[in-house]
Amino acid sequence: MEAPMPTSQAEPWTLHPDRALPADPTTRDVARRIYAATKDLPIVSMHGHVDAAMLNADAPFGDPAQLLVVPDHYLVRMIVSQGVPHGDLGVPAQDGSRTETDPRAIWRTFCSHWHLYRGTPTRFWMEHVLVEVLGLTERPSADSADRLFDQITARLATDAFRPLALVDSLNLEILATTDPASATLDDHTALAARGWGERIVPTFRPDVVLHVHTPGWVDLVAELGERAGVTVDSYDAYLTALEARRRAFVERGARATDHGHFSPDTTPLSRDDAARIFTAALQGRATAAQAQAFSAHMLFEMARMSTEDGLTMQLHPGVLRNHSARVAAVRGADVGYDVPVATEYTHNLRPLLEAFGHHPDFRFIVFTVDETIFSRELAPLAGVYPAMKLGAPWWFLDTPDGMRRFREAVTDTAGFYNTTGFVDDTRAFFSIPARHDLSRRIDAGYLARLVAEHRLEEDEATETAVDLAYNLPKQAYPALR
Amino acid sequence: MEAPMPTSQAEPWTLHPDRALPADPTTRDVARRIYAATKDLPIVSMHGHVDAAMLNADAPFGDPAQLLVVPDHYLVRMIVSQGVPHGDLGVPAQDGSRTETDPRAIWRTFCSHWHLYRGTPTRFWMEHVLVEVLGLTERPSADSADRLFDQITARLATDAFRPLALVDSLNLEILATTDPASATLDDHTALAARGWGERIVPTFRPDVVLHVHTPGWVDLVAELGERAGVTVDSYDAYLTALEARRRAFVERGARATDHGHFSPDTTPLSRDDAARIFTAALQGRATAAQAQAFSAHMLFEMARMSTEDGLTMQLHPGVLRNHSARVAAVRGADVGYDVPVATEYTHNLRPLLEAFGHHPDFRFIVFTVDETIFSRELAPLAGVYPAMKLGAPWWFLDTPDGMRRFREAVTDTAGFYNTTGFVDDTRAFFSIPARHDLSRRIDAGYLARLVAEHRLEEDEATETAVDLAYNLPKQAYPALR
Amino acid sequence: MEAPMPTSQAEPWTLHPDRALPADPTTRDVARRIYAATKDLPIVSMHGHVDAAMLNADAPFGDPAQLLVVPDHYLVRMIVSQGVPHGDLGVPAQDGSRTETDPRAIWRTFCSHWHLYRGTPTRFWMEHVLVEVLGLTERPSADSADRLFDQITARLATDAFRPLALVDSLNLEILATTDPASATLDDHTALAARGWGERIVPTFRPDVVLHVHTPGWVDLVAELGERAGVTVDSYDAYLTALEARRRAFVERGARATDHGHFSPDTTPLSRDDAARIFTAALQGRATAAQAQAFSAHMLFEMARMSTEDGLTMQLHPGVLRNHSARVAAVRGADVGYDVPVATEYTHNLRPLLEAFGHHPDFRFIVFTVDETIFSRELAPLAGVYPAMKLGAPWWFLDTPDGMRRFREAVTDTAGFYNTTGFVDDTRAFFSIPARHDLSRRIDAGYLARLVAEHRLEEDEATETAVDLAYNLPKQAYPALR
Repeated sequence: MEAPMPTSQAEPWTLHPDRALPADPTTRDVARRIYAATKDLPIVSMHGHVDAAMLNADAPFGDPAQLLVVPDHYLVRMIVSQGVPHGDLGVPAQDGSRTETDPRAIWRTFCSHWHLYRGTPTRFWMEHVLVEVLGLTERPSADSADRLFDQITARLATDAFRPLALVDSLNLEILATTDPASATLDDHTALAARGWGERIVPTFRPDVVLHVHTPGWVDLVAELGERAGVTVDSYDAYLTALEARRRAFVERGARATDHGHFSPDTTPLSRDDAARIFTAALQGRATAAQAQAFSAHMLFEMARMSTEDGLTMQLHPGVLRNHSARVAAVRGADVGYDVPVATEYTHNLRPLLEAFGHHPDFRFIVFTVDETIFSRELAPLAGVYPAMKLGAPWWFLDTPDGMRRFREAVTDTAGFYNTTGFVDDTRAFFSIPARHDLSRRIDAGYLARLVAEHRLEEDEATETAVDLAYNLPKQAYPALR
Repeated sequence: MEAPMPTSQAEPWTLHPDRALPADPTTRDVARRIYAATKDLPIVSMHGHVDAAMLNADAPFGDPAQLLVVPDHYLVRMIVSQGVPHGDLGVPAQDGSRTETDPRAIWRTFCSHWHLYRGTPTRFWMEHVLVEVLGLTERPSADSADRLFDQITARLATDAFRPLALVDSLNLEILATTDPASATLDDHTALAARGWGERIVPTFRPDVVLHVHTPGWVDLVAELGERAGVTVDSYDAYLTALEARRRAFVERGARATDHGHFSPDTTPLSRDDAARIFTAALQGRATAAQAQAFSAHMLFEMARMSTEDGLTMQLHPGVLRNHSARVAAVRGADVGYDVPVATEYTHNLRPLLEAFGHHPDFRFIVFTVDETIFSRELAPLAGVYPAMKLGAPWWFLDTPDGMRRFREAVTDTAGFYNTTGFVDDTRAFFSIPARHDLSRRIDAGYLARLVAEHRLEEDEATETAVDLAYNLPKQAYPALR
Repeated sequence: MEAPMPTSQAEPWTLHPDRALPADPTTRDVARRIYAATKDLPIVSMHGHVDAAMLNADAPFGDPAQLLVVPDHYLVRMIVSQGVPHGDLGVPAQDGSRTETDPRAIWRTFCSHWHLYRGTPTRFWMEHVLVEVLGLTERPSADSADRLFDQITARLATDAFRPLALVDSLNLEILATTDPASATLDDHTALAARGWGERIVPTFRPDVVLHVHTPGWVDLVAELGERAGVTVDSYDAYLTALEARRRAFVERGARATDHGHFSPDTTPLSRDDAARIFTAALQGRATAAQAQAFSAHMLFEMARMSTEDGLTMQLHPGVLRNHSARVAAVRGADVGYDVPVATEYTHNLRPLLEAFGHHPDFRFIVFTVDETIFSRELAPLAGVYPAMKLGAPWWFLDTPDGMRRFREAVTDTAGFYNTTGFVDDTRAFFSIPARHDLSRRIDAGYLARLVAEHRLEEDEATETAVDLAYNLPKQAYPALR
């Protein structure tokens, strides 16, 4: 570095081409070449929370605040953590609490807190969105907020920024949505009719009907039966309904299920015990212990069904949702109060892996927000059971250093080929490319270090990088039709 | 590096100006510039164990052994771990066991084991003390021990090395002591009368009166009442006495409380249950389970009181004290046998955070010696609750690599501005600047990496470094008078 | 790096002299010099699973597959994880399942999956074996498999590749085998008669007789008694038999015991309680809780015996063996299905350390596959109790990044001199030098970073590296005869 770095304000804003690559010049040189091989690969986005209805409507996006600020809990939580009320960020209240409705004011609150994101992945993603996707040339600040707001608003009014146009321009080869077990899938049907059926696919997420203590569970099960054309008055009918819905998802192009259980326990019950708990639950008298046992049992059953219908099974456990009950009551879910707990996989996954871990048609992808199990449990399990693969570092770990620590901790025992490559997880549609780009940069940096330390040849590293960015995700979530 | 490093003995001893900065030349260059901006900032030392009586007496320090060796458990434990008895290091025995009393002999034992500290923070701190504070030019060794002893003794005899002169020359803008709930605070009163009241302040540490199974608890509670002018014959009187003592601390300039509970449980009890346990404890018949429940309840109560009197609340949990009962019986506490255990914060802090986590006048600083919770629990909690901030990596983690891992693990989710910046924790008065200096170097190195990886601009990094070194600690512990 | 790296196939295969050293040129330069000082030191291999009978027979090794593939569970598990059946790798079946018997076909399966090992320590070790030990010049691949097979077969037919010749040529100063408590030690006696008694020594491993629920335990205890010349009809006789066997091991040159308990609990029982459980176990009616309590008690007793006979005590806990019962039934143990669990040391080791942690004749070496306890429990415990030392990162952590993380996490509190230096753990005889070489490279890299960051002088770093590679292992396992 020959001269001091330019200051933030001295130049028009562009992103450095080497951002998030290693600083050491030897390693960076290799990393640059590896990254060049993956940079423009199509994006395989098999796990996200983009709304199918929004895609199908294909209407212009509203305003910058509703698009980029209000629904992004990463972004909201950081500003809330400094004492700014949720209302100032436009997060709707369920109890009439004050909520800012002027998008320009919300956007200004965000921009004037830009310094809080220093060193965070949110900053990296948002920079990518603002510069690479939206073409801005000025950094967010109290001063620039209004100008940026106007520029983004103008962009969003153009056809190029409608949802389906973006699927193309953002280079999304395939985009999976997440849909409840009882979803009609009408939006997917409509999208398919317009030729998008291979690129926009649903994902089967049955959490609420598998947890018998979900508020309104009896009605949710009735709705499941209705959608499946089955009267769910028994445990067997319940299984039949679930199997039918899974088939309907497969017919609409689904490739995977997704499971957000608190505990990763997969201990099966006998059919009779499961039926007994199910009946008790229908009558509203299942105990907490029964609810947890049934939930574990149903994870086991989901694995069993996957061996039959081929849907890749994804498990995302270990997050305590709505840590503040008061905030949840006023502001609802997904506003920043989900906090990880310790996760145990060696014992908890044993029943499932013993039963299905060698099944040739089973693909089981596990995620974690507890990095202490990377080397201790995840790598040893994925490094031997053929069905099990490691998903990308998830949520709080989907960060430059988190992804680096993941590779450093699991590669020793699981290698690269027992991981799925990058799997994103976001409701922020515009940030999908940013997340893949960051992952490709970090993997390039990790592989480059192996090359620079003479632990890997560069051609192998480049081939591996391409596999991680593109081939492995496609293999992990194969098409079933 | 053009030539082999010089050997230890070939040159007079000076400390390298780039010590503890990153090795990579690109990153080091940036780190040097960032460090230059924080290097000479005043020291805010808000959590330490320097003795108020010693400061008030302002007498010359005794001898090198009593000043630098005997009371430093980091230093003692390392030599003990190699089979040298505590007695050889001058640690007093309660049972008449042999204890060296010749300070020169103790100092010689320390110097001749200097190699044990290779790679440890104790080495970094002690080098700073010996070279930067005491002006020595020779490394410790069996050979140099006597010469160093004489040189240090000569320095300590001068007025410049009296305690209060050092507060000035060591650049301590403010120094907090730690004081039991029943402390008279006479030394602080006397210091205030001499004009030191703004710079030397007490900290309220009520541990022994909150744990009903503390040996002698009934007498300790009586002493608390006496000091507060309250007859503590009921739970309500006990709360009143605690509140009164907290006010007395505030009046003497205190800014914080400090809590060293084994478990971070903060579950409150009903007033009646708490009163029942309190009464049982006064009668000596509280069970272990009751004692633990009461201790958790009182953490909750301490938070409640902080919302009223404004004292910043510090929590230091998860250390099993006096692992060897035999050593504790002979050599007492704080001689190296405190060992961490796993800490859980997501569930344990929930009651406290739900109740007070959004209170505008509450500041809650948590520490840990369990680094597995950095990314899993600490960053997600501090990254959303406004009242909660992350203290610096504590005790066994207050090290070059520990501090680096802390930033790498928490910045992603909590950013920089949900941390307090550096908070030291030492009874080694002379080493306070060394600890702050090391922290500033490590933060400079971490920030420099972000700059070198184009994840942050250098002006932002420099501003952040200044905040971490100076502004954030001051904000975390505001003056209350 | 001036030009792109050569591709894998473009040049004859040699290993880079700087492999596994840090990439940063400043640090690498120092690391190279430090490594040069340890590179050729004799190997002290005090914990391994090489077969004494094989050494004593000193017969030519069979074929490449039986030597390098079939018994290496690291290697087998990785290929199995990609869906290749154990049988294809020649792992024998207990139930008549298909098993490949053609060594050339097994070797080909291995070679054609070479890419799976990218980034793993298995790759590093195997490269060393193939190039440095066997002198190959072509990388493994489907194409090269047959040529490599023929070349290895030819090498193995020469006298230079017989076991005892290799002990010399691989620079093994001392090699410890692992032997059951009831071993005759005939092979060691025969080796001693031929002058190998100082270099090839047994290790006392009593696991199966300490766990009363081991299948066939009653017979195993009878065998123990027979070998010891004691009728084991009581708990006292059992202790006498164990003590006698330990003495017999010491007489044959043993320096250590080794303990592979699932739990590291060391809580002692009263003599009467232990005797009661022992009697119940002889009658086949000990409960699971009793079995676990007895196992913990016997760890305590093993420590007590070590204070008497001087055998260094090694503890390797926290691995759930045979995670898949189905695979274990078909393919047996040690085929890749051993998975770590969380380990707790602070509470579990307390009874043992309180009783014997300061005993001048006790040496207690602990290992872990749970890296979360490196800084939290291991370093604080080893950093104060004189008897306790930290073994090298074990099994899944015996890797470039695992060894680096170990040093980074434990040196702060335990320093270098409370670790044993490198202790290997392999049944792959040919890979012993590779493992020591990798460890020496990683320690050189870690020490070089300390030097480059001006935290250590280079002469100190070099001395420390030599201690870690050679002197500390010898001190940790002293000769007892």
